[in-house]
Amino acid sequence: MNKIITIGREFGSGGRELGRRIAEELKIEYYDKEIMTEIAKNTSLSEEYIKQVTEHKPHNLFPITIGQSMIGTGDYYLQQIQSVHNAQSDIIKDLAKKSSCVIVGRCADYILKDELDMRVYRIFVYADIEKRIARCAERNADKEGLTEKEIKKQILEIDKNRAKYYEYYTGQKWGDRKNYEICINTTDMVIKNVAPYFAKMFEII
Amino acid sequence: MNKIITIGREFGSGGRELGRRIAEELKIEYYDKEIMTEIAKNTSLSEEYIKQVTEHKPHNLFPITIGQSMIGTGDYYLQQIQSVHNAQSDIIKDLAKKSSCVIVGRCADYILKDELDMRVYRIFVYADIEKRIARCAERNADKEGLTEKEIKKQILEIDKNRAKYYEYYTGQKWGDRKNYEICINTTDMVIKNVAPYFAKMFEII
Repeated sequence: MNKIITIGREFGSGGRELGRRIAEELKIEYYDKEIMTEIAKNTSLSEEYIKQVTEHKPHNLFPITIGQSMIGTGDYYLQQIQSVHNAQSDIIKDLAKKSSCVIVGRCADYILKDELDMRVYRIFVYADIEKRIARCAERNADKEGLTEKEIKKQILEIDKNRAKYYEYYTGQKWGDRKNYEICINTTDMVIKNVAPYFAKMFEII
Repeated sequence: MNKIITIGREFGSGGRELGRRIAEELKIEYYDKEIMTEIAKNTSLSEEYIKQVTEHKPHNLFPITIGQSMIGTGDYYLQQIQSVHNAQSDIIKDLAKKSSCVIVGRCADYILKDELDMRVYRIFVYADIEKRIARCAERNADKEGLTEKEIKKQILEIDKNRAKYYEYYTGQKWGDRKNYEICINTTDMVIKNVAPYFAKMFEII
């Protein structure tokens, strides 16, 4: 039976690194941005547009007319957003059926929750904001010009959008521990050190 | 440097078992009810009374006069509850300074948060209510006569009191993932299988 590990994560918490390392340890597939490329292949939309749709809160993308009318331009946008989400759901289900894998973000935990013939382990990764700021400043050369305050603002904005997106499509609260098997606070962890233990644990449970 | 693992847990989630097994794996001390015995030794109070004070929401113990007056009987009760909590805090700090250990419940995560010369790993253990009902029904022979509905009521009542107690003394929300290093959902886990992995992980981080 395929084992699927989904990773929800606060921005800058090291969730992607943890996911990648777990996938390496278990020698299974790792999907993150690859999913957007797949959506682009299956729809007529550009990767950039898909990124925008899936990484921003849905109502940010609605034109202001949407409040006045559900037909016309507004309706078209809504349909397009929904079709991206549908394509994403189909792709995630297909990938999970194909082989054991790690999937980062994209509501995969919720999308796969009723799938049979697979075991889904849902992880949520988070950390104190100070640690996340430090991690972002360290890793992103392009943020070198930004002050800590500016990086913090960006992090909080990205998380707010992730939460909105998740809640919009799942009806669940993003990061609520009830929806995950394990929640990991990476504030004081060295991810490459702990990843093998989580990987081994997922091997046996 | 001593490593202290504190375990907060929903009733019936297997948190105590996880704590005990981690302590066994790491060959370190395990403290749970032992703390109440220590408090009884250091105060003039009975273990039974201490249990009542530390396992019920504090205001349940206040006589109704407390609302009208902070002196007299009400004041005495308040003082006694506070003195039990102070004794508990002192004992937990002493035990943690003495050697590496696992401490279950009793706000140990909060009590130790500012202690120097030790590393504190805070775990919160939880599970779906259905699994917790099943676990309680299975483990407690004395609950054999109870219906699932009655067991559920008891579980929720105990958790409500734990949350109140924790929030009263810490000002933090009980079970809020931000206050823990790892939150573990034991719904689909066999605790004896996963405990060694957590133990090993705490060895290296």
